[in-house]
Parts: sequence; structure tokens; C-alpha cells
Amino acid sequence: MTQHPAFDRLAVFAVASLAATSAFALQPTSAVDLAQQGDDPAWAITEGLTTEIGPRPAGSDREAAARKWAVATLRNMGFANVRDEPYQMPVWERGEEKAWLTSPFLPQRLAITALGNSGSTGPEGIEGEVAYFASFDALTAAPDSAVKGKIVFIDHQMEPTQDGSGYGLYGRGRFMGPTVAAQKGAIAIVIRSIGTDNHRNPHAGVTNFAEGVAPIPAGAISNPDADQLVRQRNRAAGPIKLKLILTPKTIGERTSGNVIAEVPGRESAASPVIIACHLDSWDLATGAIDDAAGCGIIAAAAKHVMTAGQPRRTIRLLWAGAEEVGVFGGQAYFDAHGKEKHAVALESDFGADRVWRVDFNLPQSAADLQKRIGLALAPFGVVTGRGKAQGGADVGALIQAGVPAIDLQQDGSRYFDLHHTPDDTLDKIDPVQLRQNVVVWAATLSLLANSSDSELP
Amino acid sequence: MTQHPAFDRLAVFAVASLAATSAFALQPTSAVDLAQQGDDPAWAITEGLTTEIGPRPAGSDREAAARKWAVATLRNMGFANVRDEPYQMPVWERGEEKAWLTSPFLPQRLAITALGNSGSTGPEGIEGEVAYFASFDALTAAPDSAVKGKIVFIDHQMEPTQDGSGYGLYGRGRFMGPTVAAQKGAIAIVIRSIGTDNHRNPHAGVTNFAEGVAPIPAGAISNPDADQLVRQRNRAAGPIKLKLILTPKTIGERTSGNVIAEVPGRESAASPVIIACHLDSWDLATGAIDDAAGCGIIAAAAKHVMTAGQPRRTIRLLWAGAEEVGVFGGQAYFDAHGKEKHAVALESDFGADRVWRVDFNLPQSAADLQKRIGLALAPFGVVTGRGKAQGGADVGALIQAGVPAIDLQQDGSRYFDLHHTPDDTLDKIDPVQLRQNVVVWAATLSLLANSSDSELP
Repeated sequence: MTQHPAFDRLAVFAVASLAATSAFALQPTSAVDLAQQGDDPAWAITEGLTTEIGPRPAGSDREAAARKWAVATLRNMGFANVRDEPYQMPVWERGEEKAWLTSPFLPQRLAITALGNSGSTGPEGIEGEVAYFASFDALTAAPDSAVKGKIVFIDHQMEPTQDGSGYGLYGRGRFMGPTVAAQKGAIAIVIRSIGTDNHRNPHAGVTNFAEGVAPIPAGAISNPDADQLVRQRNRAAGPIKLKLILTPKTIGERTSGNVIAEVPGRESAASPVIIACHLDSWDLATGAIDDAAGCGIIAAAAKHVMTAGQPRRTIRLLWAGAEEVGVFGGQAYFDAHGKEKHAVALESDFGADRVWRVDFNLPQSAADLQKRIGLALAPFGVVTGRGKAQGGADVGALIQAGVPAIDLQQDGSRYFDLHHTPDDTLDKIDPVQLRQNVVVWAATLSLLANSSDSELP
Repeated sequence: MTQHPAFDRLAVFAVASLAATSAFALQPTSAVDLAQQGDDPAWAITEGLTTEIGPRPAGSDREAAARKWAVATLRNMGFANVRDEPYQMPVWERGEEKAWLTSPFLPQRLAITALGNSGSTGPEGIEGEVAYFASFDALTAAPDSAVKGKIVFIDHQMEPTQDGSGYGLYGRGRFMGPTVAAQKGAIAIVIRSIGTDNHRNPHAGVTNFAEGVAPIPAGAISNPDADQLVRQRNRAAGPIKLKLILTPKTIGERTSGNVIAEVPGRESAASPVIIACHLDSWDLATGAIDDAAGCGIIAAAAKHVMTAGQPRRTIRLLWAGAEEVGVFGGQAYFDAHGKEKHAVALESDFGADRVWRVDFNLPQSAADLQKRIGLALAPFGVVTGRGKAQGGADVGALIQAGVPAIDLQQDGSRYFDLHHTPDDTLDKIDPVQLRQNVVVWAATLSLLANSSDSELP
């Protein structure tokens, strides 16, 4: 790893500022060590996992290999109680995937990928007239007669936001569009990818058909392909047609697992701080930003806190399995450990770009701790948000059950350019921003892991 | 087409500046008309061709459909002598294309495309040890023993340049690498794409095996996939291996053709100005920047000159066929028309970004004309270069034979991000820059088509 002088200057400045706060005087972070040491465990983990294992689909042999790799790596780093906690989960496997615009012009191939849990067209494929909808809401509002026997297309191009808040709005086309289309009698559904790029990369992602709704073939086409469909529609006198070949299948239950590791705290009775990422990835790429980087960030930060001196509370790392296809790892963790007390939960699962905002969801007793964290992070360019921390998917059940949460919000401006595409590869990660994440996480973790029982449960 | 206020301001400024030069006073361009008219034929042609026809591989039914579309479009625009001049050419067809890194880690799929004229691996594919070379020169320098029985890999990442001059240096890996690898006994060759992007898009392109060299399988992998290969190589104790399935084939001679159209000049004895683009494209995308835009630019510019008043010389448009796979259209034009006199030749085949430099290769008699063109283009941000105009591929034989040439150099900074990839689609074209091309071409054409016989042959 090359040193990055710009970031080193930032860290030195930050440490000088931090030293002036009482929080820092009490609980030094390892920011100085980080800036001075030549190695970079966050990068090493991200590079290692994406290079040696590559794609890590949930429930696959590759995900199992990633767990082995993770256990060995976390032990090598000096973490305690490193283990693989297995569970069973249903597995859906991608098949062939092809699509063409077939009418009214010469057939043109489109870049498509099946959505997770998509039904199959069979090997011969299906062809049908396109029922166009500008948005998920337009589909919902349409009468069944506008959909029946057709292939639904949902347009609605996602716009980038720094906080990623568009995922909920635009994502409905993927999360719920297939169910609604199936309920109205569509033979298949194709959506414009939930993505902000303009490359010929479709964005994968899971859909969940509602109870009792038989899955129909469901795919996402890339933004340029969606543009092409729209242009053809604008030029066509009559209907336009699509042909689809999507042959995914469900293969039953398989083993997945959560890898857990700990920095043991000085006071074993104090509840642990839990920090999460997920080890699985979509199959189209090597899952660098989603979410090898997250695992790199939390492990590097925990390692720095451990190196700086044993913290009061235990820090527990959860490298969850099977997040992408339905948060099976997060649920398995909750089933096994949900009754244990947790002081606070955090997750890194939004890429590797810089942390720009911190959001809290802490009890009133933690008001001073919250202020100390805000002061500690400000020199790194992190502002305190006004919203309530939501936590990540893998700690979602814990937070739902009342565990306090902090979100170290990463800059999502380009996250949905890459999310779930073939382009989620190591070269997309900026080492300087990755390092900023580690410093911010280390500073936060240090304060949390040394917090008192009167501050956090 | 939306109007672009920024560009309209530019045009108005430019026209005001031009009016002060004698060249402009003598031969008004249609820049004012262009800025004021709501339609945009360059965009309309680029959009129409890429939307209605899409990919246009040389010698295919799609290229034939593109010629029909072109003849109808050029007639509709009011050009004269519009015709399709057919010729025969050998056709190579892409087959299946897959690649994996198979050792020493779990198999990982790579994004690959076969190079034009690649041999076939057969449907079962081949697997072999990788012989790594940092560049084409390193391959050339290697002993046969380092290559024999292996799959050659040429690294060497292309850097962007504004004038595209890197294509020659880096392109040798594709142009000549397969021949050299075959001569040294390689069983196949894979190159890092000749491209400057970091997307999972391989860059297609032709290679020509030297006389007597039997084609071996030859493919290009995307830059992120090449990075991955290099990282695995750095981590592997022993050799790394590739598996390839590439099943292209040659299918014999097929019909291609050149579409020709004219703006007839006032003086039929004066030699014509020839302006070229190419109608064929690679098959992975719709060929928007390569080269639908070029055809749009030259036709829009010629149309503006025609609308402004009949020029002295004829302007002949050559929408050439089969450029990508060996400039068969350009050669066919030369075979049919090479003995006719041509005043000067120009080609637009470098994307749709703004013209930033003009280069000349004119006789001494055209010194004042050259100065007038330089003055006319300066207000559009075009500088006069110090190099000699090379002309484009389709007019290359004419220029070789002594026809004067002018290059309206487009900004190539991002051209090789898109060149020959699945990403060469309409959305990559900036309408404002496309329009600048048309204005610059119209101004240049107006001066050339009204030049005297004492200036140009």
C-alpha cells in the first residue's frame, strides 16, 4: 500500500484537534498509529477477498471459501473467539439470461440480468408485447387489462443522492414490481436497473414475491438499454415487443454462515459493541464495494482500537452471510444472540467512499457520548446529522428490538453507479477514502467501547 | 432536440467574429442558420441509425439495412446522386466467448471478447498456463521457449490522450500481438483491452494475421479483469492458468457497400471535396460514437452548406461500409473512383466530442485558403496544429495517392473509454459538442467547396 500524503496530513491535523477535546484525552484513538503505519488492513482485506475468492453468492461453495478465508484472516489479525456460525437458507441460482427488442425494428440484444427469485422463461424463452409504465406507482395504478398477458416494463431512472435515500423510492420497482405485475397477470417483468450509471451493466438484486404469488420471470436491463427501449417505443407506430430467456432456478436449502470475531473487553460483564458488514456478494462481480470494503473497514478499525489498548467493552465483529438475498445471516445472528445485551450496533455496507455524516439513535443517557463522538469526527469532515440512525440490514433486527445505533454515513453519490453490477471491482475503491473510513470508525469505536454502563445499556 | 443556450451564445459570438474576416464575407457559412434552427440533423441521423438499425457489423443483413436507411435519409435531406455502391468482402462472425482464471484460486469468470479474425478454441475450449508480458515489445523480445504451448497475455494499460495518438503505441498488442504470439508457438493470446476506461467491457477490434500464419484464438479482456489477472499473478506462488471458449468463424464473401451522396457544385468541371464517415460498426453496441455520429456530422454540415447556396465545387459524401474489419469500403471507393480528381479529403471518425485542432496537408497553392480556415475556426475554440493531416481510414488510399487532406481533430480524451465496447451507445454523445462539430465542419466545407482551381487541384 502506498502512503497517501494528503490523507496523512489530514490525520495529523485531526489528531492535533482531537487532543484538545476531553474525549480524546480520555480515550486516545489509534489515528496516529494508523497514519504512521505502512500497512493498511482495510485495503489488504478488500484486495485479498476480491482477488482470491472473487464473487461470493450466498449459500455457494464460494461463500463457504470466503468464510474459511475470513476465519483465517481474522485469527491472523489477532482477534479472539473467531468462529463460523452456520445456518441453512434457500438458494436461487442464476441461469442463462438474454433479452432482445424484437419489434418493430430488427432484433436488438439488450444487457439483462435476472432478479433474485425470478421465475424462469424456460430454455425457449417467451416473447410478448411491452406494457410500459413510467414508474412503479404507474404500474400500481394501472387496470389489470393494461398488463394481462404482457411483459411489464418499469422505467423511472434513479437519480444519485449523497445519502442514498433514493434507494427506497426507486427500489420499489424491483422490491415490489414483480409481485404487482404478477398479480395483474403479466407474463414477465423487466425493469430499468436501479442504478445511476450509463453503462451497459444491468444491476442485479433480489425481489420477494408475496405469499401465494407464483414467481414470473423478472429481469433488469441496463440504463442505456432502457433508453433504447424508450426511444424505439417513441418511434414505433404500434406496440414494441421483447423476447426474454431467463432460466434461473431454486435449488433448495444450503449452508451459509456468519463469521464472528471479538476484541475482548476489560470488563466481561459490560455489553458488547457490535459492528457488522456482510461477506456474501452478488455473482456478477467480486463485491468490492458491496461489501468486502465494509468488512475491511470494520476489521481495520477494531484492530486499531485493540492495538491502542484493551477497551472496556468487547467489540464484536459480525461478517454476516447471505445478506444480499434476504438478510439470512442477520436473522440467524438475531436468532442466536438477540437475547444477549448489546450496547450499540453499527454496520458498514455502503461502499468505500468517505464518511460525511454521523447519525445517532442513542438513549438520552448517551447525550454526552454523542457530543464527544460528534467532536471527535468533525476534524475528519464528518457532520452530525439531524436524522435518526437506521443501522444496516444485518443489525436491523437488533435495532428493531431496541439496541441503540449509530450510522457512519458514507458518501453514496456514486454508490449506485456500481451497486450489484459487473463493475463492482477493486479498482473502484479510492484508497484515500477507504482510509478515512477506517480512521472515523476507529475514533468512534474507541469512544463507544470505552463508554460507561451509565451511558449505554 | 432541445436547444442548448450555451452553444447558441457561442455560435452568435463566432459568427460576429467571422463576419470581420474577408473569408467569411466572401463565403458565408450557415452557422447562423444552424444556431437558429430548431432541428439538428446530426443528432437525428445519429439517433435514427442507432435506434432503428442498432449494431451494423460489416457484411451483415444489419449493415445492408443501414445502407437502405442511409439512402432514404440522404435523399430525404435533398442530396443528389444518392446511391449504394456494392462490393464483396470476407466476413468473420463472432461465436460464443467465455474466459476464466482457473488456477491457483477458485475459477473466476472474465469479461472477454474475441478479436476480429480470431481463431476458434472449439466448443470445449482450451486451458493453458499464462505467459505474461508487460507490453507488446516484451513479447517481441521473448524467446519462443517462453511462449510455446502457453496462452500469451499482454498487459500495458492505455493512457488517454487528447489527440488519440496512443492508439498506435498500445494498439500494436492487438494489431500484431496475435501474429507474433502465433509465430512463437502460443496456443492463444489474450490482451488487456486497448481502452482507457475501468468498466467490465472488453474492447473489440480487428487483428490481421500475417500471410502464412494460422490464426490462433485471440481475445481482449476488460481493464478490471486484466487488473484481476495481474493481482492473482502477484499472489500466486506458481503459474496462473486461463480457460478460453471462443468459437468465431469465417463465413466467406458477403456483400457490403458504400453509400454516396452529393451536393452538386455550380462548376461541374471543378474537382469535388470528399468527406467521409463509416456506416458499419462493431457488433457489441449500436456504434453511436463509432461512427454514426461521424455520418451525422458530415451530412449535417453538407446540408447547411447546400442550404446556404450552391457551392462552386461538388461536395461528395462517402458513408463507407466495412471500415472496422479492414477498410474494405474505403478500398472499394478507391478502386472505383481513385482515378477521378479530388480537391481535398476529410473524414469524421473519432467520436462526437468537440473539434479542438485543425491539421492540414494542402499544396503550397492553398496557403491563403489554409489561413482563412484557421481564422474561421478560431472563434469555435479550434487551434491550428503543427502536424500534417493524416485523413481517416476511408480516405486513406486517396491521400496516399496524393489527394490533399484536412483533419478536424476531435477531442479524444474519452474516446477510448467507449471505442469498440458495449458502451458505445447514444447516451454517450453530448449534443452541445456534436453541434460544435457541425458548425466547424460547415465553416470548413463552405471555404473548401468555394475554393478556386488555383488553390486546390
